[in-house]
Amino acid sequence: MRRIRVTIAYDGTAYHGWQTQDGCVTIQQTIEDALAIVEGKPVPLTASGRTDAGVHAHAQVGAFDLENRIPCYNLRKALNRLLPRDIRIVDCTVAATESFHPRYDATAKNYEYRMHCGEVCPPMVQRYAYHHPFPLDLEKMNAAAPLLEGTHDFRSFAAKNPHAGENKVRTIFSSRGEWRRDEQQWIYRVRGSGFLKYMVRNIVGVLLQVGVGNVSHEGIRARLRAGSGIPAGPTAPANGLCLVSVEYPEALE
Amino acid sequence: MRRIRVTIAYDGTAYHGWQTQDGCVTIQQTIEDALAIVEGKPVPLTASGRTDAGVHAHAQVGAFDLENRIPCYNLRKALNRLLPRDIRIVDCTVAATESFHPRYDATAKNYEYRMHCGEVCPPMVQRYAYHHPFPLDLEKMNAAAPLLEGTHDFRSFAAKNPHAGENKVRTIFSSRGEWRRDEQQWIYRVRGSGFLKYMVRNIVGVLLQVGVGNVSHEGIRARLRAGSGIPAGPTAPANGLCLVSVEYPEALE
Repeated sequence: MRRIRVTIAYDGTAYHGWQTQDGCVTIQQTIEDALAIVEGKPVPLTASGRTDAGVHAHAQVGAFDLENRIPCYNLRKALNRLLPRDIRIVDCTVAATESFHPRYDATAKNYEYRMHCGEVCPPMVQRYAYHHPFPLDLEKMNAAAPLLEGTHDFRSFAAKNPHAGENKVRTIFSSRGEWRRDEQQWIYRVRGSGFLKYMVRNIVGVLLQVGVGNVSHEGIRARLRAGSGIPAGPTAPANGLCLVSVEYPEALE
Repeated sequence: MRRIRVTIAYDGTAYHGWQTQDGCVTIQQTIEDALAIVEGKPVPLTASGRTDAGVHAHAQVGAFDLENRIPCYNLRKALNRLLPRDIRIVDCTVAATESFHPRYDATAKNYEYRMHCGEVCPPMVQRYAYHHPFPLDLEKMNAAAPLLEGTHDFRSFAAKNPHAGENKVRTIFSSRGEWRRDEQQWIYRVRGSGFLKYMVRNIVGVLLQVGVGNVSHEGIRARLRAGSGIPAGPTAPANGLCLVSVEYPEALE
């Protein structure tokens, strides 16, 4: 039995998110179906975290145990042949340890949120960017983004009571907005220790409220104070979000 | 009655090409359906040329006559609201002349063909690039590309007998290949007076034959000699091709 680590890229448009659910086509289920063909029996697949319906990934990290002794290079090829073209196994190796866990071992995650601000969103962009053709103070949004950095109780940016007792303290190492005039795209990049359900999309939603003038910089600071009681702002649409990479301790690389 | 000129972008993945055909979802039909809603009766739409099933466009040019006096800015908005998101009216104006014809008036067309040469094709790229993960002599292909430039009888690059009597002489102003190592993409760009059915895809198919060593530079020259009798080479897959722009005389701009 080997513990296999995979790096997975996907276009989330056609899927009901990562996690297996009855009656829904999900990314986890689609890959588990391919793994079951290779192994001849069910193979549970764990990931660094769930992504919501419609969210994309450049490098989600997953792991599973395999009895089949197929070399990793061939396993990757076999899986990619079995998978639809909007899900790709980018990398496949034997995990550094038998206990490697993509979620518990992760030290940081990088997300990117893209927003197209032009009047017409190009067909080749619309799958991967939220179209927002209305005036926004992008400089104010970019100035507000770093306010999220640091260790805070992020309950004002979490989904409503997803896991009532859960610790809502997370650390954001970096939170930056960038306006690319030539592409008419605003890109928000965030790197953090971990993220609550809807957290990145809720951060973007509040930054958009900053952009239209409904929330001040002080309003962001208030939301980061423990027990602020401020409910999560609007959740930005899923299609703009992409899990860019997951980081692990060097010993596991 | 006004003659309206539109610039149209589309992701051709979901369509059976440009031209209206019974029982198929086409780009022309989809836009004509939207126009019929605006006008209250059928509105024939002409374009600079047909694109094959699966081919994309950044700036296809179309024209139609409209009785409805709706301002062009609102017409564009109305059409984009009626159209699926993979077809967009990028621009909408009253044509420079009442007789403006997107095909007959065109002086040049620009196409781009993308090929992804990495072992794994990223999910966000696979819709817009042909995946070719096998060894190719890209330098030889790039050196061969300009051989197509000039005025030639291109019957050896045309679909088999599409229009038997048609004049097969066309002028290619520019034909260049570029290898982008960081993106692992080979991009072929061609600008010409006009193109025969499958011509760009057949040119790429022959350049690929050059890349694998089956066709020499002399083999390309031979195919350009009138009456060479050499049948068209393999036709490269549609998804890598994109109509980038159509050019018109300055008086029509």
